[in-house]
Amino acid sequence: MEKCVVPISGGLDSTVILHLAKKKFKEVHAVSFNYGQRHLQKEMLCAISQTGGFATSHRIIELDFFQDLVTTSSLTNNDLDVAKTKEVLGDPQTVNYVPNRNMMMLSICTAYAESIGASTVFHGSALVDSQAGYWDGSAEFLEAINNVNKLNRRDRVTIEAPLIELSKKEIIELGVSLSINLGVTWTCYEGKDEACGECPACSSRIKGFIDAGYIDPVAYSRDIPWSDYGCKEID
Amino acid sequence: MEKCVVPISGGLDSTVILHLAKKKFKEVHAVSFNYGQRHLQKEMLCAISQTGGFATSHRIIELDFFQDLVTTSSLTNNDLDVAKTKEVLGDPQTVNYVPNRNMMMLSICTAYAESIGASTVFHGSALVDSQAGYWDGSAEFLEAINNVNKLNRRDRVTIEAPLIELSKKEIIELGVSLSINLGVTWTCYEGKDEACGECPACSSRIKGFIDAGYIDPVAYSRDIPWSDYGCKEID
Repeated sequence: MEKCVVPISGGLDSTVILHLAKKKFKEVHAVSFNYGQRHLQKEMLCAISQTGGFATSHRIIELDFFQDLVTTSSLTNNDLDVAKTKEVLGDPQTVNYVPNRNMMMLSICTAYAESIGASTVFHGSALVDSQAGYWDGSAEFLEAINNVNKLNRRDRVTIEAPLIELSKKEIIELGVSLSINLGVTWTCYEGKDEACGECPACSSRIKGFIDAGYIDPVAYSRDIPWSDYGCKEID
Repeated sequence: MEKCVVPISGGLDSTVILHLAKKKFKEVHAVSFNYGQRHLQKEMLCAISQTGGFATSHRIIELDFFQDLVTTSSLTNNDLDVAKTKEVLGDPQTVNYVPNRNMMMLSICTAYAESIGASTVFHGSALVDSQAGYWDGSAEFLEAINNVNKLNRRDRVTIEAPLIELSKKEIIELGVSLSINLGVTWTCYEGKDEACGECPACSSRIKGFIDAGYIDPVAYSRDIPWSDYGCKEID
């Protein structure tokens, strides 16, 4: 396999994907998106740190218009609060959902892949995404997008999501086994100095680390009783 | 029907769609895209003229990155020549094809529709698009995209393309019956003062006008012998 395109947010999943891509493809072309997300600065610092030395190229795509166009999401509209985990339990599509973001990002990655002759977009959707209510992070969504791509008469691109059936625990274990510095990843929806520990993204991350038996190297603004769960530091 | 989003390029098809949308929906939110196309200025002047007084709103979306990202298309790479009709006959996907442009534009329109509570993206793909080799202008493509959209758990958006089975002749006749000023539309892939009359976009437009029996009110830089075909001016 020669070339792939990897959308990287700087989160756990796409960071693990980046390292997997490096094993499988000769050229890894990383792409990050600024769609006006409130955690942009934190995400991007992590994404750039992780791609350095790993990716063949890394482009930051400016979607300046998106924040103005899509105003219903707490991630892009600073007048809305990020919903905490306890506030959105059971909600099939929370205020933290960004409308059709994934199709937009994947369509741009696919256009790029077609242009450079890459066969694959290596994408970080994971089991927890659909469990959290994100329809556009599900296996069904990716299958449907690939059904669109199959209609292309030339230069067909396939979106592969090798983490799609993995739990957060399994992804963290995979990251540790690949010696990835998981301290240089950003998951929290808030863009503050320390992760909030209360948003759905933090909750699934914390649960993943507890299940894996590791202390998350990222700092939280609330106390996480790692030792109560028998967690140890990553070697 | 309350609200719809209409991507409008300033071409014949999307201009007719705009006027149809105005009949069907209370609010018509028009969107035009700058993806670095060489005919941007000509397209945009027409698009803005047509939406004035017709659309509830009209946004110009700047996709500044696209020209740099996707370099294989003559429409976005000024180092490549636009292929003339006679050069690409029988080619299933010509150099004039812009990789995955339609999925990108429709995904942004869908995100916008979700955000403003619009049920429909009213889209101008027509029969001639798939006949010209554009897989992403075909009925199959739109069906596949709608199959993605159906997975959305809330605020599902449907892409409707009421011209998808119409020939260029039928679209022109429809435009005339709606009293649209077809002189304020731009189809040619080149962005020059006058339409070239030799690119595939011009060819299908000219053939459509001849089939409909009308003289195209747009000026061409080569002589089109309208009277030889018995064409008359639009009343």
